[in-house]
Amino acid sequence: MAGSTEPTRVMVAVNESSIKGYPHPSISCRAAFDWMLSKLVRSNAGGFHLLFLHVQVPDEDGFDDMDSIYASPEDFQRMKQRDKTRGLHLLEYFVNQCHQMEIKCEAWIKQGDPKEVICSEVKRVQPDLLVVGSRGLGPFQRVFVGTVSEFCVKHADCPVITIKRKAGEAPQDPIVGTGANEE
Amino acid sequence: MAGSTEPTRVMVAVNESSIKGYPHPSISCRAAFDWMLSKLVRSNAGGFHLLFLHVQVPDEDGFDDMDSIYASPEDFQRMKQRDKTRGLHLLEYFVNQCHQMEIKCEAWIKQGDPKEVICSEVKRVQPDLLVVGSRGLGPFQRVFVGTVSEFCVKHADCPVITIKRKAGEAPQDPIVGTGANEE
Repeated sequence: MAGSTEPTRVMVAVNESSIKGYPHPSISCRAAFDWMLSKLVRSNAGGFHLLFLHVQVPDEDGFDDMDSIYASPEDFQRMKQRDKTRGLHLLEYFVNQCHQMEIKCEAWIKQGDPKEVICSEVKRVQPDLLVVGSRGLGPFQRVFVGTVSEFCVKHADCPVITIKRKAGEAPQDPIVGTGANEE
Repeated sequence: MAGSTEPTRVMVAVNESSIKGYPHPSISCRAAFDWMLSKLVRSNAGGFHLLFLHVQVPDEDGFDDMDSIYASPEDFQRMKQRDKTRGLHLLEYFVNQCHQMEIKCEAWIKQGDPKEVICSEVKRVQPDLLVVGSRGLGPFQRVFVGTVSEFCVKHADCPVITIKRKAGEAPQDPIVGTGANEE
């Protein structure tokens, strides 16, 4: 078909569940992943190369760390290491799934503002397509939660597909304070 | 893959060239079609069912008809028939392409405001994915030309993929007055 022999490189932005936390993937990113497998990849596992990006948001408020005691620089190192490990377990879920289905994949973690990092990684990695899940929030909620997917549709340097979670398909998640997660 | 046996139904919104007019497809909708074939359908022709929708904009200004003489109701009938025929030749391009590649397809014409009609047809036909081309206009131009693709991303009841035409990839088209075409 159209002479393309290189696999189609699809970047998938994944994040943790806002209910269960790490290492559980959010309902919306899992829905986006499942949609892509059943509707695009289908039986053509060899035709696609999946690139999983997880962006960790630095914990500015520090609520998670209020009961911890930091006595040395190493304590902070350990904390960072621990966060990274959790992110790795999140990625493990997707890599394992791809492995079972014999789909070639790569996965990595970056830190920062998810919408900015996703777009800069698109610029660097140049995928054919970016897939992002979306909680499908109404206009009122969007103001507070921020919309990674809307930003990416506008600013990413490649075609973007947003998979909206259907209303009523899953329990309502609490709205997280960082404005970054979209589950 | 994920047990899906039904082909993935992809609706593709197509329009005529704003330079060459009917029956030539716009650069942007042809680019979207080509992108979809090479990046999504690939060698899996049997896994996809393409649905081509062409929305004809009623000619409110009537500039095209200024040198014509209308003497009877039949003249208007003929005019409508002629417009429809041109739209059919536009669709013929895509149906022929699919036929050559043995991809199952359907194509039809509707009249109205493209962005509204596309979204109502999505509701009616319920495709798995909507593909729209976009001229990739800057924010200044967008105000005047209107953005069918942006409207669909927000309002269509299915995942939407917008294929932006790259700047410099093709000659600059004149901006059309209807606000409806996106080439």
